[in-house]
Amino acid sequence: MVTVFRIGHRKFRDKRITTHLALVARALGAKSIRIAGEYDENILRSVSKVVAEWGGKFSIEFFPYEEWIHYLEGWKQKKGKIVHLTMYGESITDFQLNQKFKKLKTSSTELENLLVVVGGEKVPSKVFQVVDWNIAVTNQPHSEVASLAIFLEKMIPKALETEFPKAKRQIAPSLEGKKNYLGYENNDE
Amino acid sequence: MVTVFRIGHRKFRDKRITTHLALVARALGAKSIRIAGEYDENILRSVSKVVAEWGGKFSIEFFPYEEWIHYLEGWKQKKGKIVHLTMYGESITDFQLNQKFKKLKTSSTELENLLVVVGGEKVPSKVFQVVDWNIAVTNQPHSEVASLAIFLEKMIPKALETEFPKAKRQIAPSLEGKKNYLGYENNDE
Repeated sequence: MVTVFRIGHRKFRDKRITTHLALVARALGAKSIRIAGEYDENILRSVSKVVAEWGGKFSIEFFPYEEWIHYLEGWKQKKGKIVHLTMYGESITDFQLNQKFKKLKTSSTELENLLVVVGGEKVPSKVFQVVDWNIAVTNQPHSEVASLAIFLEKMIPKALETEFPKAKRQIAPSLEGKKNYLGYENNDE
Repeated sequence: MVTVFRIGHRKFRDKRITTHLALVARALGAKSIRIAGEYDENILRSVSKVVAEWGGKFSIEFFPYEEWIHYLEGWKQKKGKIVHLTMYGESITDFQLNQKFKKLKTSSTELENLLVVVGGEKVPSKVFQVVDWNIAVTNQPHSEVASLAIFLEKMIPKALETEFPKAKRQIAPSLEGKKNYLGYENNDE
């Protein structure tokens, strides 16, 4: 499935946002996240803990910030496609009408090779040029977490119903909430 | 339109998440956010700045944490409906098939009176009982920012195309990204 690539991570300031990006990627069916920025053991630990408890396969890896360009270029050499989520891009509503979007969505091989880039504070302008599509989840300032969530939900078939085999914890959904769950109580949210 | 209600805000720890919640609420067409938690002038300032520059009407207000229950009860007395976004709730995919969802979505009066609750670290169990629906944007741990974004996008008609009158800054969307914009450069994200 899809890989998410976060360009930019500052250990102190971005801790929670990057953690949220990783958990959103996992929950909505991406297979992994790669982070170019400051190495952050706390994030590795908390995401790995979620994977161990809540099941499924999901990998997370950091590498130094400067390597973002090699990563993107390597991805293209392997014939993968790259979408960059940015408020400056073309509207996702228009992109959905695009034949290429439809092709991506319906071909598991293409999805397998899709990289979704989400930037941090400042995104080098070269990113805009290297990627295949610059896509905006609205042209208003808001949140890379929100953009990633909405994009994955539209791109990955049945993203909201992703299954996580071998889970130690699992919730039995209920309109009354918090009544039924297997495993111990969750305080993550 | 919809009002968002954030229960819980810790000035230091939740700064960025609460800011993202506010900006997502605005960008996807909610009319306001109310925050029960520590008063945080920085958030007020940065959200007001976005509104002043990027247009539209959007209001933000803090009140003390303990008042959350009065706020929810007051909302119900005014005959408004309340949705609480929580990983313990009923799946949003199922909720979308519900006649009540359809009624909410298609009635501007009902939408006007809809409150969407997003919790922080720990949500008092009373919240689950007071609200009309506990809805899960997946039953996996991820992000309240993502849950709010996906919910609003499904609930508010044309949420991604919300218009913001009297904007000083505005982006002309482009596949190449960052080429066209009115106003000065944005470094917010």
